[in-house]
Amino acid sequence: MKGENKMLSFQCDYAEGCHPEILDLMAKTNREGIVGYGCDEYSARAKKKIAAACGYKADEPQPEIFFLVGGTQANQVVISAMLANYQGVIGADTGHIAIHEAGAVEYTGHKVLTIPHKNGKLAAADVGRLLEKFYGDGSYDHMVFPGMVYVSHPSEYGTLYTLAELTALSEVCREYDIPLFLDGARLGYGLMAEGTDVTLADIARLTDVFYIGGTKMGALMGEAVVFAPGKAPKHFYTMTKQHGAMLAKGWLLGLQFDALFTDGLYFRAGKNAVEKAGRLRKMLAAKGYKFFMENPTNQIFVVLENERLRELEKRVRVGFWEAVDESHTVVRFATGWGTTDEMLDELEAYL
Amino acid sequence: MKGENKMLSFQCDYAEGCHPEILDLMAKTNREGIVGYGCDEYSARAKKKIAAACGYKADEPQPEIFFLVGGTQANQVVISAMLANYQGVIGADTGHIAIHEAGAVEYTGHKVLTIPHKNGKLAAADVGRLLEKFYGDGSYDHMVFPGMVYVSHPSEYGTLYTLAELTALSEVCREYDIPLFLDGARLGYGLMAEGTDVTLADIARLTDVFYIGGTKMGALMGEAVVFAPGKAPKHFYTMTKQHGAMLAKGWLLGLQFDALFTDGLYFRAGKNAVEKAGRLRKMLAAKGYKFFMENPTNQIFVVLENERLRELEKRVRVGFWEAVDESHTVVRFATGWGTTDEMLDELEAYL
Amino acid sequence: MKGENKMLSFQCDYAEGCHPEILDLMAKTNREGIVGYGCDEYSARAKKKIAAACGYKADEPQPEIFFLVGGTQANQVVISAMLANYQGVIGADTGHIAIHEAGAVEYTGHKVLTIPHKNGKLAAADVGRLLEKFYGDGSYDHMVFPGMVYVSHPSEYGTLYTLAELTALSEVCREYDIPLFLDGARLGYGLMAEGTDVTLADIARLTDVFYIGGTKMGALMGEAVVFAPGKAPKHFYTMTKQHGAMLAKGWLLGLQFDALFTDGLYFRAGKNAVEKAGRLRKMLAAKGYKFFMENPTNQIFVVLENERLRELEKRVRVGFWEAVDESHTVVRFATGWGTTDEMLDELEAYL
Amino acid sequence: MKGENKMLSFQCDYAEGCHPEILDLMAKTNREGIVGYGCDEYSARAKKKIAAACGYKADEPQPEIFFLVGGTQANQVVISAMLANYQGVIGADTGHIAIHEAGAVEYTGHKVLTIPHKNGKLAAADVGRLLEKFYGDGSYDHMVFPGMVYVSHPSEYGTLYTLAELTALSEVCREYDIPLFLDGARLGYGLMAEGTDVTLADIARLTDVFYIGGTKMGALMGEAVVFAPGKAPKHFYTMTKQHGAMLAKGWLLGLQFDALFTDGLYFRAGKNAVEKAGRLRKMLAAKGYKFFMENPTNQIFVVLENERLRELEKRVRVGFWEAVDESHTVVRFATGWGTTDEMLDELEAYL
Repeated sequence: MKGENKMLSFQCDYAEGCHPEILDLMAKTNREGIVGYGCDEYSARAKKKIAAACGYKADEPQPEIFFLVGGTQANQVVISAMLANYQGVIGADTGHIAIHEAGAVEYTGHKVLTIPHKNGKLAAADVGRLLEKFYGDGSYDHMVFPGMVYVSHPSEYGTLYTLAELTALSEVCREYDIPLFLDGARLGYGLMAEGTDVTLADIARLTDVFYIGGTKMGALMGEAVVFAPGKAPKHFYTMTKQHGAMLAKGWLLGLQFDALFTDGLYFRAGKNAVEKAGRLRKMLAAKGYKFFMENPTNQIFVVLENERLRELEKRVRVGFWEAVDESHTVVRFATGWGTTDEMLDELEAYL
Repeated sequence: MKGENKMLSFQCDYAEGCHPEILDLMAKTNREGIVGYGCDEYSARAKKKIAAACGYKADEPQPEIFFLVGGTQANQVVISAMLANYQGVIGADTGHIAIHEAGAVEYTGHKVLTIPHKNGKLAAADVGRLLEKFYGDGSYDHMVFPGMVYVSHPSEYGTLYTLAELTALSEVCREYDIPLFLDGARLGYGLMAEGTDVTLADIARLTDVFYIGGTKMGALMGEAVVFAPGKAPKHFYTMTKQHGAMLAKGWLLGLQFDALFTDGLYFRAGKNAVEKAGRLRKMLAAKGYKFFMENPTNQIFVVLENERLRELEKRVRVGFWEAVDESHTVVRFATGWGTTDEMLDELEAYL
Repeated sequence: MKGENKMLSFQCDYAEGCHPEILDLMAKTNREGIVGYGCDEYSARAKKKIAAACGYKADEPQPEIFFLVGGTQANQVVISAMLANYQGVIGADTGHIAIHEAGAVEYTGHKVLTIPHKNGKLAAADVGRLLEKFYGDGSYDHMVFPGMVYVSHPSEYGTLYTLAELTALSEVCREYDIPLFLDGARLGYGLMAEGTDVTLADIARLTDVFYIGGTKMGALMGEAVVFAPGKAPKHFYTMTKQHGAMLAKGWLLGLQFDALFTDGLYFRAGKNAVEKAGRLRKMLAAKGYKFFMENPTNQIFVVLENERLRELEKRVRVGFWEAVDESHTVVRFATGWGTTDEMLDELEAYL
Repeated sequence: MKGENKMLSFQCDYAEGCHPEILDLMAKTNREGIVGYGCDEYSARAKKKIAAACGYKADEPQPEIFFLVGGTQANQVVISAMLANYQGVIGADTGHIAIHEAGAVEYTGHKVLTIPHKNGKLAAADVGRLLEKFYGDGSYDHMVFPGMVYVSHPSEYGTLYTLAELTALSEVCREYDIPLFLDGARLGYGLMAEGTDVTLADIARLTDVFYIGGTKMGALMGEAVVFAPGKAPKHFYTMTKQHGAMLAKGWLLGLQFDALFTDGLYFRAGKNAVEKAGRLRKMLAAKGYKFFMENPTNQIFVVLENERLRELEKRVRVGFWEAVDESHTVVRFATGWGTTDEMLDELEAYL
């Protein structure tokens, strides 16, 4: 829109359309007659590429992969499909499902059982304690059964699980025979972060189900839900329909993930965002900005005096996070697959 | 995909990407930084154009318009948001919500109260009888209250309501103070059909809420839900989030409807499909095909011997509708915004 | 209440408190301190007696039995606990769950898939056809899966399944691996009907779950839900709590079923009602009343001119069933465990 | 049961049948033919007595009163009937709905928004802060709307609101136009506690809906839900049916409340329990028991070494509350309408 391009946008990682490689593929295939509801060959091809990227060999049992449109939808459909009526899902008190999904999980009849976060994350020891306490309570059969563990990687605060932490979560889940579900709306930024020891194959191996976010990683929309072999709920496909979550032109999701998993686009996109965030972090520190919580991914949370924030917002779009007190606010700077050094130069000049 | 383009696709009206005018706009705006969740200026602009196309003048109370991704989703969110817990929705027994949405309405806690269809449609007199019988039953407060009427225009069988029929439905709804909801997934094909006396303004005036289908009318995806002034449920926006139905990059929907309601694209798209269907109908009749149910829109239902169907399917993709008996099947030919005379020529040559 | 006892009550079989043998037991145990929530010894004892009455030997796998308060509640809790999200329950279009439970099944997210009744009953052949048609439809994974069969015995019209009919229903369910659920709100009247070839042991053997109605058979309230060995859903107990269906003083239900299954009270109660209905049927026929549907149990449905009905209602309470036309109504006479010959004499004198 | 009466039962206040005055009335009316579903004259009479006890004058607008069977059921039906889809209910983190109802509220689609308790209670200032923070959050329309406040009086820990505290809660609710719902499962014990300044009329005036517990106050079962004039949701009656919460022999509930509100039985029952608890408290203190949380009602929470607990449990039934650490447990002693000095003498002798 006219005049708007003068604003510098660091509000979020889903403020642009899609990566040009995706747009090209969509344009090229636009007039093909393709079968609907995700039963097409693009989707099949994308699933194969994703399975391979997750470390599955062709002769092994394969994961079951479904493409959904968005993250809240993916959380709602997966959680409601995997829980029994009497079960709830364990998550951090800061988790997206606990706060920013308008009660989408509860809407399907299930409680979110929250645990105070540690640095934005869920600690395996805390999960273990909750489970132990539950089964140790003489009245547990009058209570919601903890039936699943939900984590985000990166977390809501951009922090990352270590391989040891993720392994510990996986172990406690397996001990109690409940699934571990990883929300990977921003997975690519986590996988490409400096210093992380967690790979896509680790996630595939340690969780029962996770999703690879497309919306925030350069797709127009789309999340690839990956169930470990044998773990997909019966008739998950029908349940996506029942939630209004089945896209008529399902190949649009398949196409995009096909592109994202061709020539490592998904990883290139992640890498760019993480590198640009690194430079931005240094810029902000140099200008005296204080970080609210540190993390190695594409989101940067800073605490600002409200006056300074108002000044900043004249040229820069940032994301409101939360009020700290009457005169300070936490805001988010986010980089993405499309952030360029020119954008950072402009920002630097303005700060 | 290789080889596939040899097939002639008449299976459905959502087998291609999007109209080139839409694709152009998406490409042009792809790298703009735009605010998410539908709070953008493209969405605002599209809403204004839709309101105008519905006949609302700028100084009148305006409709409230929301963009959702798909039809089942729109049906689920609108119906569950408008019904009280104790209410169900009246629909034809052939209605999409009654059969082909995997119980999406029931999933939200509401019964679909079916009435036998007449030519694919719901008759106002039948609705009136159901309501009268309900309130005349001494035990009605032990039963599901009929709380809404759902119709599709065109219907599942491509048939159209007349203005008199729609007016009668509207009147019975207003008499009992329940909303009339019109599913317009293929609305453009209905509006442009030869002989129809129903306009978009009529629909806006006679219903409490309806939607203008994009997915089947040349958009990648998207349905524009239009609530008559004052009729939108409180916090409908939050309820779309709760259903996982809010698109992060919401402007993608706004953009597409902006294009569809620029220079009458929506109507041009509809007109092309209807005209091509007219030619196709004649071709099929000339070849001796028998029609299952006649209609003036873009879908053509024919009854085929299974042997002939197998032969046809070697080159032509048609939609399976239902088995008639052991040796006959109803199939659907559908035209769309993109159907060309060349495609019909090829088909004619093959038939 | 004063004056009311002049009315002759044939409206329903749940218009009195409870059988004196039950009241005595409740009075005798009233001040015992008993553990709550159904974990008491009375409940345990009642379950043993019911299992024995169902033909289970002590050294066989035993059924799991739960006591719930009422019929709609039992239907709701059992059906929602046994169905997967993507499934609905098949029932006759006249079934209680389809009409007179205010959408209790849909409220839990599941569709009732109706089939036109035959003499108030569901025919196995019709169920088979529905299942065959479902799995034969190319779009079945966009539809609600038929996941359970619900029948009432006696049916809503007091009719009874034969052993052959029940066996056929059981077979079709087992063929498709879906449970058969029998609503026995009035089971005792069915078991004691003249000419029936169905025993309690047959029902236990042919169904996956059924309940033995107490409310309409002489208890204050209470239904005994009997799951065949191994068929109870995991944590059904917790799900009853989740539905608000767990009675704090659960022993009150156990006590009553203990009494009902002591010295054959349940069967004596049923027998009295059926015998009295037999006499009443003859009386009504002799007076020229026309039967709406014949049945051998405790409910008698007659078609009356409205004028005659108004006259009747001056002294006799009958149940309104449905309007036939503007001048005729179907009404129900019901006998019960407490109906006496004196009551019938009085009625005869008045008719 | 044999031998059991040697145990001294202080486990809970719902371990006996019902108050003899109630049993007498049930026995006396047992064989009357009474109309079902709560449409009877006993229920009507009980409602009038309750309204009068709540301070409503005959010429004022009257409350709407419904009888339900149990507390979890009452909470579930009332909360789900009063909330819009997008709303949740605010409660203390120790609240019954938050923990011990197996997710009954979430099962109906609504989140429980918890606030840390203060002495078992919800502080108006905390509720105000939650509401203020919610509407001050820029993303609030992506979150569950706080739509109701739930309190228990007495609380889960037997503590009581003061009139000032309840007034402050009422004011914050009215400021935000959300209903205040008071769970009075043990209301009578609260109303008769020494030192309380809260009357039944205060509760009726300050809340939008509350219930008067019968189950724990001497009835077999039953809770009287009282909606302030004009506050009952439309068709609440049908919604009770939809929840399986409508008792066929509804007059059984009406009868019991008729008895409870005749000659002040409800208050006499409460007074006895509170007085006996007073004596028990002194006994326990004298024996060196330590109180976990003090309160003036019929429940006494003490912290015991596990060894001493095992010894105690040889003769005395107490309620397990929670483990404090590996060697200490919180247990509950509860008195009731039926507790006698003889029982306390026996206990004293044993302690």
